[in-house]
Amino acid sequence: MNDNCTGNSNYDLVNSWERMDDLGIKNLKLIQNPKYFCFGQDAVLLSGFASVLEGETALDLCCGNGIIPILLYAKNKGMKYYGIEIQPESVDLAKRSIELNGLGEIIDIIHGDIKETGNYFKPSFFDVITVNPPYMAKGAGIANPSSSKAIARHEINVTLEEVISISVKHLKPGGRFYMIHRPFRITDIICHMRENKLEPKTMRLVYPFVNKEPVMVLIEGVRGGRSMLKNRPPLIVYNSDGTYTDEVRKIYYG
Amino acid sequence: MNDNCTGNSNYDLVNSWERMDDLGIKNLKLIQNPKYFCFGQDAVLLSGFASVLEGETALDLCCGNGIIPILLYAKNKGMKYYGIEIQPESVDLAKRSIELNGLGEIIDIIHGDIKETGNYFKPSFFDVITVNPPYMAKGAGIANPSSSKAIARHEINVTLEEVISISVKHLKPGGRFYMIHRPFRITDIICHMRENKLEPKTMRLVYPFVNKEPVMVLIEGVRGGRSMLKNRPPLIVYNSDGTYTDEVRKIYYG
Repeated sequence: MNDNCTGNSNYDLVNSWERMDDLGIKNLKLIQNPKYFCFGQDAVLLSGFASVLEGETALDLCCGNGIIPILLYAKNKGMKYYGIEIQPESVDLAKRSIELNGLGEIIDIIHGDIKETGNYFKPSFFDVITVNPPYMAKGAGIANPSSSKAIARHEINVTLEEVISISVKHLKPGGRFYMIHRPFRITDIICHMRENKLEPKTMRLVYPFVNKEPVMVLIEGVRGGRSMLKNRPPLIVYNSDGTYTDEVRKIYYG
Repeated sequence: MNDNCTGNSNYDLVNSWERMDDLGIKNLKLIQNPKYFCFGQDAVLLSGFASVLEGETALDLCCGNGIIPILLYAKNKGMKYYGIEIQPESVDLAKRSIELNGLGEIIDIIHGDIKETGNYFKPSFFDVITVNPPYMAKGAGIANPSSSKAIARHEINVTLEEVISISVKHLKPGGRFYMIHRPFRITDIICHMRENKLEPKTMRLVYPFVNKEPVMVLIEGVRGGRSMLKNRPPLIVYNSDGTYTDEVRKIYYG
C-alpha cells in the first residue's frame, strides 16, 4: 500500500515542501517549513526551565509552530496548554503538528495578536505563561520587516515591555512567567518585570562553553512576588569537544 | 637589635593584637584586626574586575581597612586612589597600612560617612568609584547592630540605593562604577542603577564551582551609558579538587 493513500496517515498532514522532525521525546513529531522560523535550542531550553504542575493551565505567547506547548506537554502534567500566534502559516503548522501527535484535546492554538489575548481569555486566567519572544529591537538591521523570520526575530509586532505587561495581565496572582531571551537585554527585562509587578524570581545564564560569554538567559517571574532573585548554576551547553553536556542532553531527550 | 626598637620599622605600625598579612602582590602588606571585618574573596575579585586607567582618580566607598584602594593601586596605573570609611577603627588600620607600604602620596583615606562625600569632593569628580557594600538588608538577623562587623555586613548606615545615588553624583559623566554584591539582590541593583542613570554595562557571575549557584555578582555601570549589558564568561572560583582555578589564582597573585 502506498503511504500517500492511507486515510489518516502522517502524510496527509505534511506537505511535500515541509519536513517532519522527530522531537526525540515520547515519539512526538513537529512539522516545520524551512521557509519560516524553525525552532532552535532556545525553545528546548525554555521547555526544560519552565514547569507546569498537575491541573495547571499554561499559555505560550508567540508560539510559532507550536514547539513549546508540545514540549511542555511532553515534560509536565499540566491540564491544558494554549498557544497564540499572529502568523497564519505558523498557526497552520502548529495545528497540523498537534493533530499529528493526537493532542487536540490538550493543546489548543489560537490565531491572533498577543495584544488581543483578552479577546480569547479572561484576565488572570493562567497559572503559567511562557514566551520565547523576538530578541532584537525593532529596526536593528531588518532586511524585510514583513518576512515571517523577521517577525519572529525582531520586535516588529510586539515589544519586550508589551510581552511582559500582557503576561502579568493574564497570569493569576502568584502565577509564573518563564522567558528565554538574550543576556544583553537583562537590564530591560528585569526593570520592565519589576515595573509591571512581575517580580524576577529565578535566573539562569546559558553559556555555550564554560569559558565563553552567555548567549541566553532564562528567567522566571511571579506575579506579585517578593523581591529575592534565586540564581541557578551555570547552564553549559557544550563540552570542550563540542558534544552536549549531560544536562543539556537530558533537557533534549529526557 | 630588637625589632621593636627600630625607628620606622613595620613593628611600630602594627599592634600586638593585630596581624600583618602579605597580599601576595608587589610585596604589599595589610594590617588587620580579627575583631573587625577582615577582607575576603569579594574584595580581591572586585579589585580584579575594576580598572583604573592612567591618569584617572578613583574612590572606594565603605573602604574598611583599605584593601580595595591598595589592591587597585597594585593592579592599575591610576593617578590617585581615595577611600572613605565611617568606622574610626577601620580608618586607623587603613592609614597605617598605607604608611607601612609607603603609599601616602597615592592613596588617601577619609574618615567620614559616604552620605557626606560631598563635604570632601566636588560633584562629578571621579573617573571610577568602587564599592563592596553591606550585602544584607537592615534588620535581617542582626545580633548587634552597633558592632563593627554588623555595620560592614548589613545596611545599617547606608542602603544599596544610597550607595548608587551617591556614586552617580560623584562620578564624571561617562565615569565607571564597579560593585560586588550578592546575586539575590540583582533585581534591586539593576533597577536602582537604571533609575539613577548609572546604566549597567558589564555583569559577571561568580560561581564557587562549575555546577553550583553563583555566590557573587560583579557589575560595572557607566554614568549616562546607553542600554546594553555585556555579560562576561562565568568566573569559577574552585576546581573540583578545591584548588583555585587558573583565573582566580591570577586575580589573587597576578
